[in-house]
Amino acid sequence: MDVRSAYQELTARSKKAALLRSTASVLGWEEQTYMPPNGAELRSKQLSLLAGLVHERTTDPKIGELLAECEAGDEFAEGSLEADNLREWRRDYDRSTKLPQRLVEEITETATLAQNAWVRARKEHDFHAFLPWLEKTVTLKREEADAVSDGKGLKYDALLDDYETGITTDLVAASFAELRDAIIPLVQAITESPKQADTSILKRDFPAAVQKEFSEQAAADIGFDFDSGRVDVAAHPFCSSFGPGDTRLTTRYDENFFSMAFFGTMHEAGHGIYEQNLPAEHFGTPAGESVSLGIHESQSLTWETFVGRSRPFWDHYFKPAQTAFPSVLSDVSLDDFFRAINDVRPSYIRVEADEVTYSLHILLRFELEQSLISGDLAPADVEAAWNEKFEAYFGFPVDHAANGCLQDIHWSGGLLGYFPTYALGKMYAAQLFAQARHDLGDLDGLIARGEFVPVREWLTANIHTHGRRLTPRQLIERVTGSPPSPAPLIGYLRRKFGDIYEIN
Amino acid sequence: MDVRSAYQELTARSKKAALLRSTASVLGWEEQTYMPPNGAELRSKQLSLLAGLVHERTTDPKIGELLAECEAGDEFAEGSLEADNLREWRRDYDRSTKLPQRLVEEITETATLAQNAWVRARKEHDFHAFLPWLEKTVTLKREEADAVSDGKGLKYDALLDDYETGITTDLVAASFAELRDAIIPLVQAITESPKQADTSILKRDFPAAVQKEFSEQAAADIGFDFDSGRVDVAAHPFCSSFGPGDTRLTTRYDENFFSMAFFGTMHEAGHGIYEQNLPAEHFGTPAGESVSLGIHESQSLTWETFVGRSRPFWDHYFKPAQTAFPSVLSDVSLDDFFRAINDVRPSYIRVEADEVTYSLHILLRFELEQSLISGDLAPADVEAAWNEKFEAYFGFPVDHAANGCLQDIHWSGGLLGYFPTYALGKMYAAQLFAQARHDLGDLDGLIARGEFVPVREWLTANIHTHGRRLTPRQLIERVTGSPPSPAPLIGYLRRKFGDIYEIN
Repeated sequence: MDVRSAYQELTARSKKAALLRSTASVLGWEEQTYMPPNGAELRSKQLSLLAGLVHERTTDPKIGELLAECEAGDEFAEGSLEADNLREWRRDYDRSTKLPQRLVEEITETATLAQNAWVRARKEHDFHAFLPWLEKTVTLKREEADAVSDGKGLKYDALLDDYETGITTDLVAASFAELRDAIIPLVQAITESPKQADTSILKRDFPAAVQKEFSEQAAADIGFDFDSGRVDVAAHPFCSSFGPGDTRLTTRYDENFFSMAFFGTMHEAGHGIYEQNLPAEHFGTPAGESVSLGIHESQSLTWETFVGRSRPFWDHYFKPAQTAFPSVLSDVSLDDFFRAINDVRPSYIRVEADEVTYSLHILLRFELEQSLISGDLAPADVEAAWNEKFEAYFGFPVDHAANGCLQDIHWSGGLLGYFPTYALGKMYAAQLFAQARHDLGDLDGLIARGEFVPVREWLTANIHTHGRRLTPRQLIERVTGSPPSPAPLIGYLRRKFGDIYEIN
Repeated sequence: MDVRSAYQELTARSKKAALLRSTASVLGWEEQTYMPPNGAELRSKQLSLLAGLVHERTTDPKIGELLAECEAGDEFAEGSLEADNLREWRRDYDRSTKLPQRLVEEITETATLAQNAWVRARKEHDFHAFLPWLEKTVTLKREEADAVSDGKGLKYDALLDDYETGITTDLVAASFAELRDAIIPLVQAITESPKQADTSILKRDFPAAVQKEFSEQAAADIGFDFDSGRVDVAAHPFCSSFGPGDTRLTTRYDENFFSMAFFGTMHEAGHGIYEQNLPAEHFGTPAGESVSLGIHESQSLTWETFVGRSRPFWDHYFKPAQTAFPSVLSDVSLDDFFRAINDVRPSYIRVEADEVTYSLHILLRFELEQSLISGDLAPADVEAAWNEKFEAYFGFPVDHAANGCLQDIHWSGGLLGYFPTYALGKMYAAQLFAQARHDLGDLDGLIARGEFVPVREWLTANIHTHGRRLTPRQLIERVTGSPPSPAPLIGYLRRKFGDIYEIN
């Protein structure tokens, strides 16, 4: 077989595996949205079967042979579509074949059991009930790190690499330290400011049907294509793209809290817009896939926070909001509304955190899980370490484990190395948005006029269109001229919240 | 490999194929209910891939070897679970392997193209635009019949056998002739009766949300388990069971016509109750599958018509209906309501037909397609033959082809041999319901008190629980002591509509 044919064969196999994964995505989405309770057992069997078929195909030794054939020649120039796909196929193939089948199965089984244990432990506020599972999970993830890195380098690097290729523990640690040193005093100043928002205006009566219409209109306005996607209700908001022409978002409506559905929908729409603007012609190959969790999060946060929680956005949308919710917003000023949706308030729970304190929640988790994986922190000491750090960063003590180290599902699911991508996403978003402001000129004016097409097109041209052809780091460097840095985020937070809280 | 191991291997393969089919069912259901318009192309690729995987697995020569191994010994007694599964696996395997791959592909492709042509032809009332596709379809189906029957026997028998095993053209022809001779004069008498219903009461304002609640309550009351299923909106009502614990129904709401959603939901719930009460422990093998389209239809019609359109049912439900729709039903008497939902009126369109004329629509189609397949009728003569028969059976001429031979999708989809199962289902239902009345004693009393559990349990014990272990004919004989016969249906129609129209 010549190199071109080998490449074609790899492409065909890659597309077939993608279709199977995409089928599993439909089933996974449906499980969270419409499936009746007794359908769970059958659904898990269907998903196991599909996972098995995907695994069989993606670890087929034939792929290794085809890759070796393609890599042997110099048929494909560096930076060509083919070379980029081959590099990413190699990465995927190595990662999945380096993990012994036994370890994969043990991690999967442990995740299921550990999640059940976590649900109970969280309910009981009982860290010790979860401890054996945390210990087992950490042991398995350390094994995984050794397997994929052949025992070389930092174990945590190997885990991080699964979610954010090319981003190292050192880079994260250095960036997060800068963030911490900037955010802690900023939060302090905000807390002490006399200009506190009245958030009760967001907790009035917002009928779900109107929220749905209003938030979907905003999602459509910023560029989410409802002919190629939809929004449904689920317990946890997420975005699941099946492939070209079909991207699903979920949200949830709290009739006594405006922000949940609106900013949730904007956030997921940001993920969805990324998926909808990946190059469809490359679907099923790396060039048609999103590149990393961090870059994905940068897209959702761009639309949710940098656009959606900005003053110009509400210069445009506040009138429509008053029209949609006349009985609860007609007596509210734009100024008060804007302050309320940007209220900063240190609190226990990550998923309820505001823009400023959110990153602190992530830093804390990163520091702990990095020590867990390096072996510097014993799982048994996690609760104490969490509580100590929390009080140091947030200024008040944790009351119980459900508000502390048991609040997130991630560790029980074996997702160590995942948390940093949330804060990296925020960093990327700030850096990209600053560049967009530079490139597009009057960005605030565009947003205030509801003209989102240039912003969306800028993101597509600079981020979406590249698929996985550049790493996250390469992407950021290429677009902004600098490697990922916390400076733009720090500047943004100081400016925005300095203004709102009249700190400077 | 010993016989037991061969049987186990067949079981494992059968279950895996069933899970893949069930996965395709989820995707198919979702396509009809929630999928956004631009998702169609990706969905068809996913479904093709799954169909290919199923085909690969179900025609694997290894299955032939395993079957031969099991059939060689006398390990499994006749009537044992194993013997029954083996018989049905053999049937499925032979049918799918006897069809040349070329023919399967041509039939599939032709169906897609012919359906597009049919949609256009129907819109234009232009039979001749559809004729080339009808010709091609008939040619291919004749080839299919020859392939599966090795050229032996009636071609139409071979097609019918795909939908209704063991039921022959002769049996259908004889039964349908009896039906025709009874129904035509009955319709005549009904049409001439002075006791005509006022159907305008069903065309008042019935809010969709209330219809949904009321019809789903009735579906739950008769035994559809909403923890193991749900009802969603789709353009065409259907039931799709994914497997144990998950059976989906669809319906549609016309706010100015009560009957559509209510009886549609009852009908699909009847299908769903059958699926929900198949023996779950045999899921993925013939013993856990529904046996035929005709038996399936008997279950939907039992609940929709024999129960749902009966007088005792409305003795129980009319008060709740008045409570649900007070503004439009409070001035209506139970008597007038009952007459309205049982209005008999000869009309062009099969899917809108009442209980009495429905079978006439089927007889006409059966007679035509049987002649098409035997070669006695040329496709070019179908329109004239249809129009002639229609006028003879219904007493008035067809105005155009969209109200005549172009009204149904079936022929364009290659589904020749399918139509008879609708009328067979009605025959079976009448025969089974008469037996249930005999076995359960005061059946009308049970229904009038809303006590449906005994009826549902009777159907489960006598029909559902057998899966495919008995053929439709064996099932009917075993339960009622007689082979399938039109007599019970004729008796039922004469009694019920004789009373309503005061004919006797």
